Amino acid sequence: MKIGFLGFGEVASTLSEGLQEHGATVATCVEGRSTRTKNLAGKSGVNLYKTNIELAEVSDILISTVTPFQAIKVAQEVGKYTNGIYVDINNVSPKTTKKALSFIDNGKIVDASIIGSVKKVLNALIIASGEYANQFTELNNYGMNIKVIGGEIGQASAIKMFRSSFTKGISALLFETIYSAYKMGIDEEVLKYIAKTECEGFKDSSISRIISSSMHAKRRGEEMEEVIELISEYIDPKMSNATEKFFKSLYKNVNDLKTRPGDYKEVFKLMDKK
Amino acid sequence: MKIGFLGFGEVASTLSEGLQEHGATVATCVEGRSTRTKNLAGKSGVNLYKTNIELAEVSDILISTVTPFQAIKVAQEVGKYTNGIYVDINNVSPKTTKKALSFIDNGKIVDASIIGSVKKVLNALIIASGEYANQFTELNNYGMNIKVIGGEIGQASAIKMFRSSFTKGISALLFETIYSAYKMGIDEEVLKYIAKTECEGFKDSSISRIISSSMHAKRRGEEMEEVIELISEYIDPKMSNATEKFFKSLYKNVNDLKTRPGDYKEVFKLMDKK
Repeated sequence: MKIGFLGFGEVASTLSEGLQEHGATVATCVEGRSTRTKNLAGKSGVNLYKTNIELAEVSDILISTVTPFQAIKVAQEVGKYTNGIYVDINNVSPKTTKKALSFIDNGKIVDASIIGSVKKVLNALIIASGEYANQFTELNNYGMNIKVIGGEIGQASAIKMFRSSFTKGISALLFETIYSAYKMGIDEEVLKYIAKTECEGFKDSSISRIISSSMHAKRRGEEMEEVIELISEYIDPKMSNATEKFFKSLYKNVNDLKTRPGDYKEVFKLMDKK
Repeated sequence: MKIGFLGFGEVASTLSEGLQEHGATVATCVEGRSTRTKNLAGKSGVNLYKTNIELAEVSDILISTVTPFQAIKVAQEVGKYTNGIYVDINNVSPKTTKKALSFIDNGKIVDASIIGSVKKVLNALIIASGEYANQFTELNNYGMNIKVIGGEIGQASAIKMFRSSFTKGISALLFETIYSAYKMGIDEEVLKYIAKTECEGFKDSSISRIISSSMHAKRRGEEMEEVIELISEYIDPKMSNATEKFFKSLYKNVNDLKTRPGDYKEVFKLMDKK
C-alpha cells in the first residue's frame, strides 16, 4: 500500500508516523517547499518524489494536506495524473472540497475531515464521505481511524464545519452574556448557575472559550463567511450572521491578543477601554 | 416566624409545604382569586387573610409569587402597608423587579430568583440579592435553600435572566445548525460529533431543546425583548437580537406546537412545508 501526501505539515507527518509503524509505504514531494516542511519530511523518513505529479501517478491513496488556500490549486495540478484514490482532508468548506475534487479526472474521490486535533494523535478520528470513502478505510488496516459517514462529497467537510461554527456561536453567546454580567458584577455567579443546567466542566471551558475568542477573532470571523454561505441554502442564518458580526466586532475592539491572557476578565477590561 | 405569600400558585404552595413542615406560620389571601388558587391554598392549610394589605401588615417576610404581569401591581397595592421584608421572587427582569420593589415604602426589599424548577422541589435553590437578602436567609432555618449572591437589587433576577437567555441562544444556534445538517442528511452525525467536544448528554439535551423550541417559540421570542434591553446597556446585543429574531420567525413558521412531537425531525418537516 503506497500512500502519498500532497503537502507535508503536521497532519501529514503525524499520520505518516502511524502508517509507517503499520507497514505502509509513505511518500511526498517537498520540492520548492519551506525548510520546515523539508525537515518534517526528512525526520519522518518518507519517500521523496521530485514532483506532485509523479507522486500522484504512483500512490494508491493520495491525501491532500495542504493549506486551505491551496486545496483547489493542488488538486488542479495533479487531477489528470491521479491513478488511485484522492482524499481531500483539508480544513475547507464543502464547496471548496467539491471544487477541488472536481479536478480529479478518475473520479475516485473522498471528502475527509479530522475531528478534533491531530496533534501527536496518531489515530485521530477521521470522518469520510463519498462513493470511494470505503476504499479509504483500507488505511484502518494501517492504524488509521477512519469512519464513513455518508455517500456524498461535501458531507464530511460539512460536519466539521457545522461543528466548528456551533462552537463559535457558543463562544459568541458566552462572551455577550458573561461580559454583560461582568459589567453588573455577577459574571462568576452567572457562569456558576449556567453550569448547573449545562455540564461538568462548563465553567472552565467557557472561560477558555472567552479567552481564545480574544486571540482568534479575526480568523473566526472570516471562517463564519463560508458557514453562512452554506447555511443560507437551507435557512435564514440569523445566529451565524450574528456570530460573524460578533467576531468581526471583537477583532476591531481587542485585535487578536498575541499572548494568552491569564483570566477572561483581562479581555473584558480591554473591552471596557473602548 | 410569619410568612405571607402574595399570590398562591405552584411556587407558593410548594414552598409553603416545606416551611410549614419546619414550623413556620404561612398565610396568604385568596379573595377574588381563581378556584385553582383557592384549592391550592385550601389543601396547603395556610392561614387566609381577607386582603393582601392585611397580609402585608402581619407578615415578617412577604413573598411575591404572582404572574410576571402582576409583579408591579401587587407591590403597588401593598407597598405602604408592608411591615416586614418584601421579597420579589417573580420571574421578571431586573428592571421590573426594581420597579416593583420601588413601591415598598419601608425599603426592606429583596430580589430573589428560583434556579431551576420548583416543581415538587421543597428546597429548590433560591438566589437573593439586595441589602436585606441576609434577613431573607433566615428562612433557611425553615427548610429553604436561599443563597445571597450580591448586595444589589437586580442582580438575582439578572442571573436568572442571563441563564435563561443563554439557554435560548443555544437552542436557536442548535436549531439553525441541525436543521441545515438535516437538509444535508447529516443531522445525526453532526449531533454526534458536536457531542464529542461538548459533554455527556449533549445529544439528548439538544434534541429536547429543538423540540421544546417548537412548543414555546412565542414566549421565548417575547422574553428576549427584556434580555436585549438589559444587555444593550453594556454591549451591542448581536447574539441576543438574533435569538429573538430566530424565535419570532420560528413561531411564524410552526406556531407553537400543542402536543410534544416525538422526534425533532417532525419539527423540521413542518419547516420544510413552509
